[in-house]
Amino acid sequence: MQKPSLPKGTRDFGPIQMARRNYILDQIRSTFQLFGYNQIETPAMENLSTLTGKYGDEGDQLLFKILNSGDYLKNVSAEDLEKGASATLTKVSEKGLRYDLTVPFARFVVMNRNDLTFPFKRFQIQPVWRADRPQKGRYREFYQCDADVVGTDSLVCEAEIILMIRDVFAKLKLNDYSIKLNNRKILTGISEAIGAAGKEGQLCVAIDKLDKIGWEKVQEELIGRAFSEDSLEKLAPLINLTEGFEGKISFLKSFLAGSKVGLQGVGELEELAVILKGMGENLDFVDFDVMLARGLSYYTGAIFEVKVNNASIGSVSGGGRYDNLTGVFGLSGVSGVGISFGVDRLYDVLEELELFPQGSVQTSKILLTHFDEKGFSYALSHLQKFRKAGIKAEIYPDLSKVKKQLDFATKKGIHFVGICGDNEIAENLISIKNLETGDQESLTIDAAIFKLS
Amino acid sequence: MQKPSLPKGTRDFGPIQMARRNYILDQIRSTFQLFGYNQIETPAMENLSTLTGKYGDEGDQLLFKILNSGDYLKNVSAEDLEKGASATLTKVSEKGLRYDLTVPFARFVVMNRNDLTFPFKRFQIQPVWRADRPQKGRYREFYQCDADVVGTDSLVCEAEIILMIRDVFAKLKLNDYSIKLNNRKILTGISEAIGAAGKEGQLCVAIDKLDKIGWEKVQEELIGRAFSEDSLEKLAPLINLTEGFEGKISFLKSFLAGSKVGLQGVGELEELAVILKGMGENLDFVDFDVMLARGLSYYTGAIFEVKVNNASIGSVSGGGRYDNLTGVFGLSGVSGVGISFGVDRLYDVLEELELFPQGSVQTSKILLTHFDEKGFSYALSHLQKFRKAGIKAEIYPDLSKVKKQLDFATKKGIHFVGICGDNEIAENLISIKNLETGDQESLTIDAAIFKLS
Repeated sequence: MQKPSLPKGTRDFGPIQMARRNYILDQIRSTFQLFGYNQIETPAMENLSTLTGKYGDEGDQLLFKILNSGDYLKNVSAEDLEKGASATLTKVSEKGLRYDLTVPFARFVVMNRNDLTFPFKRFQIQPVWRADRPQKGRYREFYQCDADVVGTDSLVCEAEIILMIRDVFAKLKLNDYSIKLNNRKILTGISEAIGAAGKEGQLCVAIDKLDKIGWEKVQEELIGRAFSEDSLEKLAPLINLTEGFEGKISFLKSFLAGSKVGLQGVGELEELAVILKGMGENLDFVDFDVMLARGLSYYTGAIFEVKVNNASIGSVSGGGRYDNLTGVFGLSGVSGVGISFGVDRLYDVLEELELFPQGSVQTSKILLTHFDEKGFSYALSHLQKFRKAGIKAEIYPDLSKVKKQLDFATKKGIHFVGICGDNEIAENLISIKNLETGDQESLTIDAAIFKLS
Repeated sequence: MQKPSLPKGTRDFGPIQMARRNYILDQIRSTFQLFGYNQIETPAMENLSTLTGKYGDEGDQLLFKILNSGDYLKNVSAEDLEKGASATLTKVSEKGLRYDLTVPFARFVVMNRNDLTFPFKRFQIQPVWRADRPQKGRYREFYQCDADVVGTDSLVCEAEIILMIRDVFAKLKLNDYSIKLNNRKILTGISEAIGAAGKEGQLCVAIDKLDKIGWEKVQEELIGRAFSEDSLEKLAPLINLTEGFEGKISFLKSFLAGSKVGLQGVGELEELAVILKGMGENLDFVDFDVMLARGLSYYTGAIFEVKVNNASIGSVSGGGRYDNLTGVFGLSGVSGVGISFGVDRLYDVLEELELFPQGSVQTSKILLTHFDEKGFSYALSHLQKFRKAGIKAEIYPDLSKVKKQLDFATKKGIHFVGICGDNEIAENLISIKNLETGDQESLTIDAAIFKLS
């Protein structure tokens, strides 16, 4: 007899975990919809030609590949086999599992470009798979939760991303967090201003480590990457800017005076603030971080990253604007901007901060319990009435000891039991007991339904 | 430049298809929850040791297998390779994609048996993958939607399955359908009663084709399977039973008088009817079909199959009771009963019968439109007010011709536009136009919000 197990890095979601994850996803979904985003889904499997080369060499290694059906070796020659796995890979596997939601979305846009209405606002909530080494908080299957709008460069979209983040976090009762904001063009401008034009890639790789290793070590790394002492001196004032949004904008206007693209980035951020104000909104929770540099190779405009304060997990959401998402599939000139929520990380944060609501278990409101055959029949005769009133209800389906029935309710997170004993039957009542408080009262069925509605 | 495509047999779900599928899933989910079922999810990948041998030889062939990461040939010897694909398969692949939701559920129950509260009622809505030859209505990735309760043999569960089916179908506005009902024990009894004891497997394979090929051909097939003329004569009266539920029960009581197990099956159906009556319910939509025989090797008690009349697609749901779901994983004695809804088939039925509600597109309620920069700012200044009232709202994010904005709303299925022109701005109003009827009225923002709430 085999003892079953799960593949490394994968998880089951039992009723409680599911209800909690659904609670998070429901909030995010309703926000996306409130802002006019429509849901789509793409298949778990994509052609490897769609996936390969989009995530760098390391990403290609981490793709889960599907073995071709039937005789999977039929296209493989003896010669191929001698050369080993890498020479045969493309001959034994043509499909892989989705690695993220962005590349499938780009593929979707290109394949459906004649049918879609642009600007196209889509959201997508689906699992992705990565053959990463599993560790705490890192799984081989996890959900991504993305919203993107493509086909417009309106900065209203950036403003709405900030508003969506705030809407989601307010619903989740998270109120101590920062929306870190920057613009890729500012980073380009900085590299020009410090006399290291074109080296913003290396600059950002180093600066990305600022939080972890500190300014000293970042300088060492930059010198190792052939940045001059002079450029480091010029860079220094940016490291600890303490001004607010307006102050940073003025500082950058003079700092980047010689960089056209840099000033353009500053201008975009200024306009974003103007749009928010025009919408009756503000920059609450926004932290303009001139050193924020995530996914540089990808983003071309605004960059977002959301960090929850007072939680051991850092970034729970991120995104930005990209100018050429679909170029790799032959459709250029499609600008877009998007945001991704890390559902697993939000789950851990809400658990750590004890912010999951009691009611999120999505379980029955009431369990009808009984002592004997007669009570069982009596309970059965009323059960459907609760359901017809929209109350999630169930009966303990076997004749069992009451203690067992109450344990069942407690373990399943059901707050009320409806006791159907001889007294209740005689008076055509039901005793509703609150398992948390122990309170109990005998009510008519209608009154019980009213109480639980 | 590569032209992207989808793997054979897979589909994207665009906004309209998603909204429609969500509409179906929402109804099913709410019914499952109303009856006390809790949602779980299992990983897309399972160990092949969990999946293999559970679906017959053909099923094993149809499993999608995941290539081991890294050098997938590292455990394969030259000798293995000479023997070909089948000799190496287990050495290059250890995981496969979920083929259904039942086997992963059985694995889940066994692995979590010490933490679960029995009777355990779970539902699960997830895609499954089969390397079947794709054809109309048959995909390589499709959703299954299952509810099962394990750990009780109470016939209340069977009664509730009938009630859940009726609840789902009522919500979907499907009112011309049959819940075909039978009991595996009756089929066993019939094989005994016609003098072909133990041959109910073959009997059922043949009878399963009754609808398609007719009684004449079924008889030919049975004779080919060594059923005697005598047993066919005895079987004949069962083929066209025209009586109602009660009539069939009495007929079978005498027909199966000599079969203990057969009478037990009849007794279970009688008790099921009694339970429904005791719940204030009835046998509406139930069609007792003594010849119904689906998934025989699997079921041990009640068998269900739901057919929509007047639709080109037949069976949209099915299920039954099984006595040993988890036995293969080392946990015996766990009886269960379940139902599965075919979401893709229900989708096709609702489309054919034009039963999708207009409002199921889950799109914005209103698009704010504008003629120029001034109108754009005005629209922006009011946009958040709609959202704060819970109204899904968006603004056309670019300065474009009004016709383009109206086309956008129409294509996206948005019913109302909020026109922000010079007159509206001067009077601090907004003109709400219903794009379906063409009706238009100028309202204060508050009145517009009230109208759309």
